[in-house]
Amino acid sequence: MAETSSKQDLIVGVDLGGTKVLAGVFGPQLKLVATSKLSTKSDRGYDAVVERIARGVMDAVDEADFSLKQVRAIGIGAPGAVNPESGEVIFAPNLRWKDAPLKKDLEKRLGVPVFVENDCNVCTLGAHAVEFGGRPRHMVGIFLGTGIGGGLILNGELFGGHNRTAGEIGHMVLEVGGPKCGCGNRGCFEALASRTAIFRRIAEAVKEGGKTLLGEMLGPGEELSDLKSGDLRKAIRKGDKLVEKIVEDAAEYTGIAVANLINLFNPEIIVLGGGVLDALEDEMMAIIVATARDYSMAGTDKGIEIVASKLGDAAGITGSAVLARRGLKA
Amino acid sequence: MAETSSKQDLIVGVDLGGTKVLAGVFGPQLKLVATSKLSTKSDRGYDAVVERIARGVMDAVDEADFSLKQVRAIGIGAPGAVNPESGEVIFAPNLRWKDAPLKKDLEKRLGVPVFVENDCNVCTLGAHAVEFGGRPRHMVGIFLGTGIGGGLILNGELFGGHNRTAGEIGHMVLEVGGPKCGCGNRGCFEALASRTAIFRRIAEAVKEGGKTLLGEMLGPGEELSDLKSGDLRKAIRKGDKLVEKIVEDAAEYTGIAVANLINLFNPEIIVLGGGVLDALEDEMMAIIVATARDYSMAGTDKGIEIVASKLGDAAGITGSAVLARRGLKA
Repeated sequence: MAETSSKQDLIVGVDLGGTKVLAGVFGPQLKLVATSKLSTKSDRGYDAVVERIARGVMDAVDEADFSLKQVRAIGIGAPGAVNPESGEVIFAPNLRWKDAPLKKDLEKRLGVPVFVENDCNVCTLGAHAVEFGGRPRHMVGIFLGTGIGGGLILNGELFGGHNRTAGEIGHMVLEVGGPKCGCGNRGCFEALASRTAIFRRIAEAVKEGGKTLLGEMLGPGEELSDLKSGDLRKAIRKGDKLVEKIVEDAAEYTGIAVANLINLFNPEIIVLGGGVLDALEDEMMAIIVATARDYSMAGTDKGIEIVASKLGDAAGITGSAVLARRGLKA
Repeated sequence: MAETSSKQDLIVGVDLGGTKVLAGVFGPQLKLVATSKLSTKSDRGYDAVVERIARGVMDAVDEADFSLKQVRAIGIGAPGAVNPESGEVIFAPNLRWKDAPLKKDLEKRLGVPVFVENDCNVCTLGAHAVEFGGRPRHMVGIFLGTGIGGGLILNGELFGGHNRTAGEIGHMVLEVGGPKCGCGNRGCFEALASRTAIFRRIAEAVKEGGKTLLGEMLGPGEELSDLKSGDLRKAIRKGDKLVEKIVEDAAEYTGIAVANLINLFNPEIIVLGGGVLDALEDEMMAIIVATARDYSMAGTDKGIEIVASKLGDAAGITGSAVLARRGLKA
């Protein structure tokens, strides 16, 4: 059966994260046919991870009843600075990679053209192509998860800047002297509104005697930081005022970050996604939008949309598939 | 004599400010031949200001022993949001203009092609063309004066975004809950490091018993806010520790703003200018650069230059001349 299918439009999109590798097989019109999921095992080193990415691709293709020969291209979103021309991952702190020739190694391994980009760029590209039909000339993507990342589309194209590191939205300082960030500075957006920041603030509030329902959700031996964004939503819906306030604060910081990006980039669309926003869209979006409108300069936000992505978990594999399809056309 | 000169490369650049109109006549290779200076008198209304701009242009041309017939084009940098295609000033709060058809009205008045852009964009364009030979693909200009403005060159071209308001660097929030800004928000870069912000902080420190030499520099009936950036430099060089500390703080905020812009735009060059920086370059630049390097993400500032513009007061007229020359070629 599979052998009779056209090879024309079969694309695999890979979302390479610090903890897991997702792969999705996409048919014509970017229809998702099948997926696979493996853990990354970055501690085993670069070669082992390349092998696992290859296996993830083959698992997904097999799941879809196709063979690798029918795949025209593979796109990969990787967590770090990427040179999309050479397909090298310049540095990826989560994976402890530096100057890793991912495109070359995977093409050798799989015999299919591979295109590599930064993960947040890929998610922005996916939203741009799939949710907005590729129309916006200027668009900014913001992804709230364990950390905070961003992607820029300027003049219809991904924008990387001089060192391919443009769009490091998470390390925009919003509050000089604010909480310590993983990057070593203080007051970065990521230190104020990421999942890590939200759980840190909850833990601090509990230490000061604050009451939360989250304790009841812990399994044996688990700590607050082991919980997920969905647990925050559950707690809020059960009436947890402490969690509600801290999530609202994170939404307000996010709104100020959005205003900064409107003032700086003046894009047509700001799209928000990532695990925190996917889980807490109802709790956060109205605050984000109102704050962003309030803080952006008068007149600058005219006609600008601030929206939550509908792609959810599939943002990475979808964007990677868009990347691969674009790469083939280029 | 003038009549025998070639018309080929005679360009007039105009720097339209809230208080004064500067015009400069530029010969081949953008050599500055003569200048003029008038007060803007914006309270007299739009038509009167257009008339004064025209007079400023004619004064400068006459000063250079040329006639208007020999001018190929006029460029204007205007303080507000500009649509460079139509040549309209969309809004300019300092002039109280809205949807002002400046290009059309000046062309009718002078019979010479007119090109209009935002003033900070024009200054960035001038630095890009004259100081860096048009080479940097991505460059950000920051201008510290009464307020703070910016300009963006991305992929070799001025970037305006959706509503032509991109690059509103002065209203990037750096300190949530910080000092009140003229825009109505709190903690904007402009509220932390502009001349207005510096003098406000000095006045606050004096009210709390701080000692400064600036009082001796005041003329009869003058207040601290009547002083200029050059007076700050004089006070610091006479040993005024209060002014020195406040200027150093402004430089540190500026460095953090520069780091944010490196993290977001990753340009090859960040160029700084404006009255505050021109007067206090020796006091501020080393702190700005060190802070920016410290706050930008590891690896992102590789090969990126952070420099003070050498154009000084001539940045506006020079950039406007570059704008006009570009416009003719387009």
